[in-house]
Amino acid sequence: MYQAMTALSVAGESTWRGEFALGQAPKGSTVLVLGAGLAGMTAAYELRNAGYKVRVLEYNARAGGRCWTIRGGDRYTELGGEVQECQFDEGLYFNPGPWRIPYHHYALLDYCKKFEVKLEPFVQVNHNAWVHNSQAFAGKPQRYREVQADYQGHIAELLSKAVNQGALDQDVTAEDRQKLLESLRVWAGLDADNLYRTSPATSLRRGFAVDAGGGLMPAAQPSAVMDRQALLHSGMWLYLMVGQLHEFQTTLFQPVGGMDMIARAFAKQLDGLIEFNTKVTRIQQSDQGVTVTCENSQGGPSRQVKADWCVCTLPLSILSQLPVECSPAMQAAIRAVPYNASVKIGLQFKRRFWEQDEQIYGGVSYTDSPMQQIGYPNCDYGSRGKGVLLGGYLWENNNAFEFTAMSPAERIKKAVEYGAQVHAQYPAEFDNGIAVGWHRVPWSNGCYGAWTEASRATHYTSLCQIDGRLVLAGEHASQLPAWQEGAVLSAQDAITRLHAHIVARPAADV
Amino acid sequence: MYQAMTALSVAGESTWRGEFALGQAPKGSTVLVLGAGLAGMTAAYELRNAGYKVRVLEYNARAGGRCWTIRGGDRYTELGGEVQECQFDEGLYFNPGPWRIPYHHYALLDYCKKFEVKLEPFVQVNHNAWVHNSQAFAGKPQRYREVQADYQGHIAELLSKAVNQGALDQDVTAEDRQKLLESLRVWAGLDADNLYRTSPATSLRRGFAVDAGGGLMPAAQPSAVMDRQALLHSGMWLYLMVGQLHEFQTTLFQPVGGMDMIARAFAKQLDGLIEFNTKVTRIQQSDQGVTVTCENSQGGPSRQVKADWCVCTLPLSILSQLPVECSPAMQAAIRAVPYNASVKIGLQFKRRFWEQDEQIYGGVSYTDSPMQQIGYPNCDYGSRGKGVLLGGYLWENNNAFEFTAMSPAERIKKAVEYGAQVHAQYPAEFDNGIAVGWHRVPWSNGCYGAWTEASRATHYTSLCQIDGRLVLAGEHASQLPAWQEGAVLSAQDAITRLHAHIVARPAADV
Repeated sequence: MYQAMTALSVAGESTWRGEFALGQAPKGSTVLVLGAGLAGMTAAYELRNAGYKVRVLEYNARAGGRCWTIRGGDRYTELGGEVQECQFDEGLYFNPGPWRIPYHHYALLDYCKKFEVKLEPFVQVNHNAWVHNSQAFAGKPQRYREVQADYQGHIAELLSKAVNQGALDQDVTAEDRQKLLESLRVWAGLDADNLYRTSPATSLRRGFAVDAGGGLMPAAQPSAVMDRQALLHSGMWLYLMVGQLHEFQTTLFQPVGGMDMIARAFAKQLDGLIEFNTKVTRIQQSDQGVTVTCENSQGGPSRQVKADWCVCTLPLSILSQLPVECSPAMQAAIRAVPYNASVKIGLQFKRRFWEQDEQIYGGVSYTDSPMQQIGYPNCDYGSRGKGVLLGGYLWENNNAFEFTAMSPAERIKKAVEYGAQVHAQYPAEFDNGIAVGWHRVPWSNGCYGAWTEASRATHYTSLCQIDGRLVLAGEHASQLPAWQEGAVLSAQDAITRLHAHIVARPAADV
Repeated sequence: MYQAMTALSVAGESTWRGEFALGQAPKGSTVLVLGAGLAGMTAAYELRNAGYKVRVLEYNARAGGRCWTIRGGDRYTELGGEVQECQFDEGLYFNPGPWRIPYHHYALLDYCKKFEVKLEPFVQVNHNAWVHNSQAFAGKPQRYREVQADYQGHIAELLSKAVNQGALDQDVTAEDRQKLLESLRVWAGLDADNLYRTSPATSLRRGFAVDAGGGLMPAAQPSAVMDRQALLHSGMWLYLMVGQLHEFQTTLFQPVGGMDMIARAFAKQLDGLIEFNTKVTRIQQSDQGVTVTCENSQGGPSRQVKADWCVCTLPLSILSQLPVECSPAMQAAIRAVPYNASVKIGLQFKRRFWEQDEQIYGGVSYTDSPMQQIGYPNCDYGSRGKGVLLGGYLWENNNAFEFTAMSPAERIKKAVEYGAQVHAQYPAEFDNGIAVGWHRVPWSNGCYGAWTEASRATHYTSLCQIDGRLVLAGEHASQLPAWQEGAVLSAQDAITRLHAHIVARPAADV
């Protein structure tokens, strides 16, 4: 998970500020946008608003691409031919792709505001969620709050001890020492002797064994702090990092009703511009314009669509399989980026036992099983009906390929088995599930572009250049890999440069 | 603030588990409940369900007591005669009393579920909110995320250094040292030399100076970490404690639409049982029952109400001024608890500049001015209309008495002046406000019962005993002072004991 987190964390915040708008398009200029994901729709929306004549070709029968929500009744056929028909109850959903929006993803949030997509908080850190390590604490999950309080308490105690032994006298002045010790006591709940031990003060942070009550109910009893060595060796401190990362800091958001509410809002703006069920098979260009060959996604005769310019947002995992007329440098760049594997599994249960039995409202539990994360719904808190949770979120080096190779039914079965290590209620309460392995998604062949520092140094600039009549956009053409914000910003940047390029041309050439 | 936090934090979690229900009441038994706050309504609801004949007397024209929400059009007259008429726009509100519900306040949340009170997350820690100290960083507010990342980074670096110098060799084994160093690097973003310094790794935690973008937008630039000494002396680390406390950990809740949605839901259940505008002036009891003297809150002739039993939930600040027939021990207890001062100020602004200009969505900023906290609305994120925030939350030893002494208009004026230290937009965007000083609230004369360890040891048990025909309930009769959960649990505990006492009596006496 650490690897996955840091891979995602090349940079968490976006540079976007303020309203985006292009200038005026030259009269009659046409742009063909390939792909109606967030990058394609951002490009189409802004180009259309600037006065360009825009058409969008989309492989799927719906807009959004990886901005995707599965609900009861939806059918999904993966590569290999397995069909899943979602059995979720009315009102429940699962986001196989992105599921959260950092508050600093300004460009995406601006479109949400503009299109009146209602947002609600996405809970990332839930202090009452579980941290589970099969090799530690006899496999018994610990509460996140206990791991957090005890890790911080133990390191605060150790640092206090070192300071008091004079070990840091060369680094910390006498006055600073006092401030430092005071801060550690307050922050971690150390006692007057700078020790972190079972007490009301530490239970105020980690939670009590017997809670305070009203009237003559039993007195509160502190909970026992974990042994420092056991905690260090458990590796559970790893998960505390998540809440530290800017990408996952508060206030995170999710659209009310599913991530695809954003896709739907974009699509509504582009009514009539998107041609669905259209598979691109070839991209050609000349001095005069672009010619894109396409066919119905389900097969059928080829046809050609022409335009003055083309913004291509197809994932590189798809684009690299097509004949594309562009410079050797862009060709090399398109082929240089493998796609990360990921599997997400949505499970419907007969009741929201995580709330009712365990007081976990939203957020994420962590486990060292292949499931890695169990994500609870951040909505409808306290509702009496069924509930859908994220049963597993598998990454590149954590069994994602193995699970992609399984049938959907096997993935779900395994998710229920592994999940029972964290929630004993799983087997009795499980209802049905859906599992998306991103390397079997026909229109993306993977989860997101897996740039390395080396591949970026060699290829990124070539990938993003305007190449004749063609420019690329998408999360793969951004410094925010895997994030919707990357897709949106890459589109804004690409069309800004494209528009400047177009209007700078001699009038006859436009 | 530290004092206020810890005062509130005598114990944060409640012992309640599972559905509450009394057994069957003896036929014809009557109970008079004084006060229709959450304690009184809990008692009335459960006693009525058990078969008792229940009447509730309430001073105000509404139910809820301190579970109170002020909206546009509401009039509020404080002690001293000042009248405030709230000018908020439709849909906006302010909670002068409780404003958040910890997930572990099980009893209260159970009633919310039962009565279908819709809940939404209350954001306590917002990493992008401000921490402001007029004496530090030239008075310039810092982002919470910067304070958090840098405090943790600096202490992790210091501890790593001490460990590497062998200062803790007696406490930490060689193997543990490696685990510890690894954990500190991951947790705090230290580099390979265990140093915390300006870098992408630290900016992934504290935020970047220039954020990553799409396409060929400028490269991300790390932000500069704060000097350790400056941070230690700023005292800003104090505010990091808040998010550590179990009471304020995720997932906190608020009712959608205002805290009094809970009061309204209770009151709906008790339709016809509550007599509003009724001021209790005397409580008498005998072997046969209780006689409560009361009058219209606005004055008028006295009348008497009789019942077999009485559950009194009046705040001790009120009860201690009335003639009450009870044991000397309970008398002493009633008089032993002073009430804490608090002032809360709600400010309406012409636009939600904290979201639009500063990307602060919900949560709390901290300041060393008398305002102490600025709380942002945890709802309607991104809305284009006006917004109401908590402009100040003043406590006992932080100017609450001084502000209670001011006129409401003065309090509001000061709140706008002080708030401008954190948000320069205040003067231009301020619209109107409302200010509640709890020592001027006619029906509570203070905010909540200020128990000390010593007063609890002497008086708490006496306060909670069944005294003849009388039992007390309310947050003051709980180990969760100031919390609604304390009020609910104290009522449940009091009526559980009362019911057991009643049914244990010889049949003729009941």
